[in-house]
Amino acid sequence: MQLIIGNKNYSSWSLRAWLMVNKAELTFEEILLPLDTPEFYREITKFNPAAKVPTLVDNKVTVWDSLAICEYINETYMNGRALPKDPVERAYARSISAEMHSGFNALRNEMPMNIRATRFIELSEQALKDIQRIDQIWSNQMNMVDGGCGWLFEKWSIADMMFAPVVMRFKTYQVKLSPLAQQYLDFVLTDPDLNRWIDEALKETLIVEIDEAGIDV
Amino acid sequence: MQLIIGNKNYSSWSLRAWLMVNKAELTFEEILLPLDTPEFYREITKFNPAAKVPTLVDNKVTVWDSLAICEYINETYMNGRALPKDPVERAYARSISAEMHSGFNALRNEMPMNIRATRFIELSEQALKDIQRIDQIWSNQMNMVDGGCGWLFEKWSIADMMFAPVVMRFKTYQVKLSPLAQQYLDFVLTDPDLNRWIDEALKETLIVEIDEAGIDV
Repeated sequence: MQLIIGNKNYSSWSLRAWLMVNKAELTFEEILLPLDTPEFYREITKFNPAAKVPTLVDNKVTVWDSLAICEYINETYMNGRALPKDPVERAYARSISAEMHSGFNALRNEMPMNIRATRFIELSEQALKDIQRIDQIWSNQMNMVDGGCGWLFEKWSIADMMFAPVVMRFKTYQVKLSPLAQQYLDFVLTDPDLNRWIDEALKETLIVEIDEAGIDV
Repeated sequence: MQLIIGNKNYSSWSLRAWLMVNKAELTFEEILLPLDTPEFYREITKFNPAAKVPTLVDNKVTVWDSLAICEYINETYMNGRALPKDPVERAYARSISAEMHSGFNALRNEMPMNIRATRFIELSEQALKDIQRIDQIWSNQMNMVDGGCGWLFEKWSIADMMFAPVVMRFKTYQVKLSPLAQQYLDFVLTDPDLNRWIDEALKETLIVEIDEAGIDV
């Protein structure tokens, strides 16, 4: 199994898939392609006609896009256990995962993932609404899960994978959250897999100008 | 089971979920909320904290977002049959579904779904690239499926649900496609369920100004 990803400092979608294969305890070869370079386009198209990272190659199967990779691994290797078992919670986890996957454009455009940076940024009204909605999702779950605060549901799930890059964005841009949402963020930041990703991101030196928004603080 | 949707003329995401419940032959009550009105926000929040359509309420389960609804129905009522059985095709169907779900922002912003209109629109370079990519996805599948041109895979699948609103956009803005992609579009436009949606869209009178892009032709 090969997972093709972008730079760990910047590639928010890659982080989701990388965390998922790690959480599922799958053995994989990691192929990191530097974003925004001629090499990237030359190499990624060998694996994936959509020219996108993350891409997972599993023998004859090729699957791309963070959410498709998560559903694929969940179905193929985890017998569905990467989503809560209870039908109400399971549907809710799918809903917030898909909501994150397709939405929050203002937040994503204005706050690019940039793990090594600590920045201040002036946000649009829409980005502030996006933050408010994510705060609501996280803090509601922290309230509802017995013995929280840990993952959004009883165990880690695809939903946590989908929100992991947002955790990194909120850290970089020092977003002020409600206490329960902040506890979720703090918890995720203690995850050993995520910390391996962060450590490797901090060693990277390539700069992608378009993702360098905000003022250093 | 209740499916809460927006106006049939405009609500591209609602169309996906509505087609899915119809293709799955489920009995449901349709609740149509007029987009962009005070009534919309007052009513939708009774069903869904994300205040989004489509939302499916199935007894105690609430699920929203077009892709989450499709996966929910596939898992709960179709034993996985709304995606191809072959693992390579299944992963590919999930990939293009997720690619459509999270991407093609230029196309979606510049060509709002507007079923009753026939329009000309000046497109950005990015929107043209989006069209090219979708043309590639469709025409590749028409080439590969035995006995095509029909659905993207051997039977209808979640992937066809995800692309249905794009079929309507391409028709409205008279997008020029390659012959095989055009055959897919023509085929989808013969679907009886989609035609019921279109008929009902044509009876609607509400105008959402922001979705009225382009020049009448």
